[in-house]
Amino acid sequence: MEDHEKGYFTEKDSEEVVIGRNKNAKDERLKEVMAIVIRKLHEAVKEIEPTQQEWFEAIMFLTRTGQMCTDWRQEFILLSDTLGVSMLVDAINHRKPVGASESTVLGPFYVQDAPELKAGTNICLDHKGEDMVISGFVRDTTGRPIPNVKLDVWQTNDDGFYDVQQKGLQPDFNLRGVFRTDEAGRYWFRAVKPRFYPIPDDGPVGQLLGKLGRHPFRPAHLHFIISADGFQTLTTHIFDSTDQYIDSDAVFGVKKSLLANIERVTDLVRSKELEFANPFWETKFDFVLAPESEAASSERTERGKVIAGAQR
Amino acid sequence: MEDHEKGYFTEKDSEEVVIGRNKNAKDERLKEVMAIVIRKLHEAVKEIEPTQQEWFEAIMFLTRTGQMCTDWRQEFILLSDTLGVSMLVDAINHRKPVGASESTVLGPFYVQDAPELKAGTNICLDHKGEDMVISGFVRDTTGRPIPNVKLDVWQTNDDGFYDVQQKGLQPDFNLRGVFRTDEAGRYWFRAVKPRFYPIPDDGPVGQLLGKLGRHPFRPAHLHFIISADGFQTLTTHIFDSTDQYIDSDAVFGVKKSLLANIERVTDLVRSKELEFANPFWETKFDFVLAPESEAASSERTERGKVIAGAQR
Ligand SMILES: [Fe+2]
Ligand SMILES: [Fe+2]
Repeated sequence: MEDHEKGYFTEKDSEEVVIGRNKNAKDERLKEVMAIVIRKLHEAVKEIEPTQQEWFEAIMFLTRTGQMCTDWRQEFILLSDTLGVSMLVDAINHRKPVGASESTVLGPFYVQDAPELKAGTNICLDHKGEDMVISGFVRDTTGRPIPNVKLDVWQTNDDGFYDVQQKGLQPDFNLRGVFRTDEAGRYWFRAVKPRFYPIPDDGPVGQLLGKLGRHPFRPAHLHFIISADGFQTLTTHIFDSTDQYIDSDAVFGVKKSLLANIERVTDLVRSKELEFANPFWETKFDFVLAPESEAASSERTERGKVIAGAQR
Repeated sequence: MEDHEKGYFTEKDSEEVVIGRNKNAKDERLKEVMAIVIRKLHEAVKEIEPTQQEWFEAIMFLTRTGQMCTDWRQEFILLSDTLGVSMLVDAINHRKPVGASESTVLGPFYVQDAPELKAGTNICLDHKGEDMVISGFVRDTTGRPIPNVKLDVWQTNDDGFYDVQQKGLQPDFNLRGVFRTDEAGRYWFRAVKPRFYPIPDDGPVGQLLGKLGRHPFRPAHLHFIISADGFQTLTTHIFDSTDQYIDSDAVFGVKKSLLANIERVTDLVRSKELEFANPFWETKFDFVLAPESEAASSERTERGKVIAGAQR
């Protein structure tokens, strides 16, 4: 019998020795997940060949990251975000049929129960920044418009903060609202031109970004959660395609299909109609929702579901 | 230009997008390490296909692990130990020439400045447990005995605790001592038969072990740090080969070459000589030290060293 088969450690067979130890795990999914985690972890260590000092620095980085977490700060999610893991998990769980709009991360600033507003309402309650009107159609994958679609939207104010980050400084529900498409499948509302903003970078993750020569900024965007009966709910952003950080979102949220043209409008008649200063900004962005029936086959693979199912 | 080359996220090229973002890192070693970490992390996520809930459970596990850490408890090291990573890092940093004794992990209970004692001294100061005498030779890889080798030894008492875990309850430096080989390269000292003991299992790592059907025990062992001028310092254990946990050390410290026979001795003359009760236990274990000059070529690979060197 080989050493590793007896449970003794060998550098060569380290993965097998460690994975073998989990043979009595009752939860088949956990056992499968840990086998993959252990194999990839050992592969990484063997490729990196860390010194003892480097290993200890990694231990201390993870420790500081855990200790930075509070009820209102989740530094491990920030780490997941900045290593592209959050976007990858999102992508795996929201694979869409061809032609449907793509998803991106929810982000930490979503608030439930934002007020449902009449089409066209201006959600900018602090009167800062440059006026913007947003409109578009929501369609199904065959191109048919969908009426009565719910669009839950939120964005930062002109200082780059969400209302919940500046309680008391911004009006409640500033730059948030729930809209619905009309009979023609069209939505529209008024808001403010979004601004880029930094993710919290005063912790271990921010320090790591610094050492990697990376900035902490997210390009300007609006958040949407779009839902309608019979369709998959879509959590996404639209991005200002001209933002200086559009190619370098700190959390990798940008997908090509989510780039919006935000155009400067100098039409006095329209600005008067919209009760806007002149000039103002306009963006038109259409969404395509995937049918609910596609969810089973497009979200995660069959294999993933079978394993996940085994544990429930 | 492909989407991922612009820095936009795609599921398929997620590794490239994220690794590409670190192109301006000044520290070449950090850049290399993070490229490997990101690649293996994304490979793992793609193979696991976690649900959003599973991803969040992983985030919360890491958070709890960080928050369990204090000045006297390092839960991330425990996680590294129980996933075999600590042993792997030790192995990579202490590759030995053929015939030399193998290393194992230092463990958290080493204390500097243990007293230097005369050969044969009994280090068991609390008079608990069953008497044991340990002896052996220290040689070089050509078989020549090495005189004046320093052996720093420590072990648990019969209750399975190190002195530093029971300050006030055990005498200071109980079951610790520094010995030297004589002119013939021989060491010997008296102690107690070691006992298996659990790693701290009241935190997230212990919970994980439970879910994986694993116990928290380490088989009975004695710790050694063995050093001599002109030789690589050897940090290792010797294990009681008959221990019930010998094939399932919670931290994977056991290597086949470190198994010791601990034999029962019923010789009344010898027990009287050793001032022991009768019967007592005896183990003979020889060590082979690698020459210092081999260190450069056997510890980590050339590639690893070149990269590590670049950052200093
Ligand atoms: Fe945002
Ligand atoms: Fe120990």
